[in-house]
Amino acid sequence: MRITDMHITPIAVGDPPLLNAAGLHAPYALRIIVELVADDGTYGLGEVPGSSGTLASLEASREIVVGKDPFQLNAIRQGIDKRFGKEEIAARGEAHLAFGRVSQVHSAVEVACYDLMGKATGRPVVDLLGGRVRDRVDFSAYLFYKYEGAGGALGFGTDPNATGWAAARQKAALDPAGVVAEAQAMCDAFGFKSIKLKGGAFPPDEEADAILAMYEHFGPGTPLRLDPNAIWSVETSVRIGERLKGILEYYEDPCRGQAEMGEVGRRTGIPMATNMCTTSFDHIPGSVQHHSEDIILSDHHFWGGLRSTLELSRICQVFGRGLSMHSNSHVGISLAAMTHLAGAIPNLTYACDTHYPWQSDEVIVGGKLQFEDGSLAVSNEPGLGVELDRDALAKLHQQYIDCGLTDRNDAIEMQKVQPGWEFQPLRW
Amino acid sequence: MRITDMHITPIAVGDPPLLNAAGLHAPYALRIIVELVADDGTYGLGEVPGSSGTLASLEASREIVVGKDPFQLNAIRQGIDKRFGKEEIAARGEAHLAFGRVSQVHSAVEVACYDLMGKATGRPVVDLLGGRVRDRVDFSAYLFYKYEGAGGALGFGTDPNATGWAAARQKAALDPAGVVAEAQAMCDAFGFKSIKLKGGAFPPDEEADAILAMYEHFGPGTPLRLDPNAIWSVETSVRIGERLKGILEYYEDPCRGQAEMGEVGRRTGIPMATNMCTTSFDHIPGSVQHHSEDIILSDHHFWGGLRSTLELSRICQVFGRGLSMHSNSHVGISLAAMTHLAGAIPNLTYACDTHYPWQSDEVIVGGKLQFEDGSLAVSNEPGLGVELDRDALAKLHQQYIDCGLTDRNDAIEMQKVQPGWEFQPLRW
Repeated sequence: MRITDMHITPIAVGDPPLLNAAGLHAPYALRIIVELVADDGTYGLGEVPGSSGTLASLEASREIVVGKDPFQLNAIRQGIDKRFGKEEIAARGEAHLAFGRVSQVHSAVEVACYDLMGKATGRPVVDLLGGRVRDRVDFSAYLFYKYEGAGGALGFGTDPNATGWAAARQKAALDPAGVVAEAQAMCDAFGFKSIKLKGGAFPPDEEADAILAMYEHFGPGTPLRLDPNAIWSVETSVRIGERLKGILEYYEDPCRGQAEMGEVGRRTGIPMATNMCTTSFDHIPGSVQHHSEDIILSDHHFWGGLRSTLELSRICQVFGRGLSMHSNSHVGISLAAMTHLAGAIPNLTYACDTHYPWQSDEVIVGGKLQFEDGSLAVSNEPGLGVELDRDALAKLHQQYIDCGLTDRNDAIEMQKVQPGWEFQPLRW
Repeated sequence: MRITDMHITPIAVGDPPLLNAAGLHAPYALRIIVELVADDGTYGLGEVPGSSGTLASLEASREIVVGKDPFQLNAIRQGIDKRFGKEEIAARGEAHLAFGRVSQVHSAVEVACYDLMGKATGRPVVDLLGGRVRDRVDFSAYLFYKYEGAGGALGFGTDPNATGWAAARQKAALDPAGVVAEAQAMCDAFGFKSIKLKGGAFPPDEEADAILAMYEHFGPGTPLRLDPNAIWSVETSVRIGERLKGILEYYEDPCRGQAEMGEVGRRTGIPMATNMCTTSFDHIPGSVQHHSEDIILSDHHFWGGLRSTLELSRICQVFGRGLSMHSNSHVGISLAAMTHLAGAIPNLTYACDTHYPWQSDEVIVGGKLQFEDGSLAVSNEPGLGVELDRDALAKLHQQYIDCGLTDRNDAIEMQKVQPGWEFQPLRW
C-alpha cells in the first residue's frame, strides 16, 4: 500500500466574535485539510490549525509522505523530523519552516494514515489504537465571553431568522448573566455536563463572579473550569483561586510558567490544568520537577499525533497526572480523530474541550457530527468514519481565499473594536 | 474476529549449567507457550517465563481472553487487571494469584493478539507497532560463567560428538581465559559484535579481570558489559567501576537500589544500565529522582507487552535514558516478538541481550531462528512470522512433565554442586 498523492487545502470556517486573552476571534477560523490518496483507491483525512507556516510546512512534507506506506508511521515521522531539522532547513535556506511545525505536520499526516489504515483493515481508528475503553466520549460546554454576532458570512452581524442554539450563539455574553445564559443555551442544545469558561478577557473578579453565577445556576453537580490563558500573576491566581476553591473542577492556566503554576496549585489546593506550560514531551521533566499541573490538556495536533498522545497518557499515569483534551476552532475531521483517540485512552476521565458548537461550516459528508447528551459515539466505521464533502471543501477553500486571512491574529481583530489594544502577557 | 480458544502449554527446554548471582541454571529452563485460536481459523502465539504462579495466572485469565476480539487490547488489559485485582482475588480466595503476574500474563496474551492481528491484516507485527526503523536487529553475545556440560537431555553431561558452537557450549568457563574462549566461540558462531558477561558468580576482581581479558582480546571496537546482578556493595561497585572505566559500554546492575545505582553512576562516570532497579512504570518517578540509570534494559515480558514497551521508549526519550533489551532463557516466539518490537523503536540503539544461543530446543517450524552477522532480520511475514511445530511443542511439554521442575530455583541447583550454598543479596 502506497500513498500516491497528498492534497493540502486551507479553509476558512465562520467563527463568532469570541474574546480571549489574546484579543478577539476573527470572523473566520483557519484550518488545513490534508487528504492522502492511496494506491488502493482509498483516501485518508487529517486536519490541523491553519497558518501560513503550517501550510508551507505541509507542502514541504509532501516529498516525504508521497510514496510511503501509511503503516510506516515511524519512517514518515523520521522523514518529517529530518526534513525540518536544522541541517536540512539551513541547507535549503528555508528559515520560514520552523521545526516547531513538526508536531502539527506530523499530526495531520498521521491521522490521515490512520484513516487509510482503518479503511485498509476494515477497522475503526480506535481499534488501531488498542481498542475502545468507552463507547461514547464526553465533551464539555466551552463558553466564551463574546460580542454580539455570528461571524462567517454574516461578518459580525446576526441572522434575525436563526433559532435555537444558532440564535443563542449570536448573542453577546459580557457579564455573569450573559455567561450563564450562554451556558444554559449550549447545554440545552448539546447536553454538555461540564462547563469551561475561557477567561482572561475581563478583570479577574468579574470572571470569578461569572463562575460563581454558574455555580449558583447549575449547582454543584456541574463541573466548572476557568481558563484565563496565563495572563494573571501568581498572586492574582491565588487570590481568585481562594474565591473559587471547592467550586472549580480544575483551574486552567491562570498564570504563566511551570514553577508559577505549581506554586498556585500548592497554595490554593485546587487541581491545576494546562495546555500552556506543559505542551510537549520536552516539558515533562520540568512538569515533574515543579508539579506544574494535575491535569494535562492534551491535543493531538500539538503533541505530534495519536500515538504520541497515547504515550503521553502513560506518562500521565506514571506521574499521577489526569488527562483531558484541549481544543481550537475545528471541523469534523479533528473531532472524529479526537473521539477515536479519547475512546482508546483509559485514563482520559474528564470531558474533553471542543470549540465545535461555535462553528457552523463543515467539510464532512452529512454535515456536522451530532452530540447526544453531551457526548459523541466512537464510530465503528472503518477509519475515522467521516467522508469528505468535496463541494463543501471547495466552498470553504474559496471562503479562505476571499476572506484574505492567512494567519490567526486575535490582537488585530481586537484593535478593530478597541483601537490601540495590545496583548499583555501579564495583565492582571 | 473473536478468540475462540486459549491453549497454555508449559515446556522445558535444555539449559546448560550457567552460573549467576542466584546460583546455577537447572538442566531445563521453563517457558509457557500461549496459543490463541481465532474464529477465522488462524492462531496467534505468545511466550513467557515458566513458573507455577504464571501458569495458574494464565489459566485464570482464560475467561477474560476467550471471546474477545484480539484488536481490543485495552479491554483485554482492563479485564486482566480486574481479574487479578485485590478485590477479585480476595472474593475468589485466590491468594496464589499475585497481581505481580499481571504484566507477564498480559505480555503473553498481547503478543499472541498482535500475531493474530498481523495475520488478519496481512501485516508483520512491526507494522502494527508503527513500522520498521531498521531491517535487522542487533543482538549481543550473552556470556556466562559455566560448569562443563550441556543440560537438557544430556543432564550436565557433554556430547563428545558435538562440533562448533554445540561443542564450545559444553565447555567450562570459570576464569578469564575460559570467558574469552567462550566469547570468541559465540562471536564466531553468531557474529555478535557486543559482549555481555553475567557476573555475580566470582569475586568482583576476578570478573573485572575477565572483562579486561576480553578487552585485550577483542580490542576497543567491541562493546563490553558486566552484570553482577546487584550483589555488590556501592563501594565495591565504585572500586571495580574505576578499574573498568573507559572499558565498559555500560555497567549493568552492579548494586541494588535506585539511589545506590545513581551513586555509582555519579562517582564512576560509567553509563549505568538496569533491569533490576527500574523494572516497571511504578519505578519511573524514583528513577527520575535518583537518576538511577542511563540505560533501561526493557523486557516486554515484564513491562506488560509490546505497547507498554513503546510507551517506555518515549519515557526514555523524555528523560534522556538509552534503551536496550534484557533476556531470559527463551525460544523463538519471544525472540520473534523481541525482534519486531526492537524493529519499531527508534531509540533502541544498543544490541539486545538474548540467551537464545544457549538453548537448543525449539517450538517453531523450521527450528531455531538464525543470526547473521550478530543480527536477525525483522520478518515481513504476517504476524510474528513464526509457526508452531506441534510435535516439538508436545515433546517439550513432555520434557516439562518428565523433568519435574515447576519453578526456577537456581539456589537449589547450586546446592547440588556446593552443599550449603545460599544466595546473598549483598555478597561482595
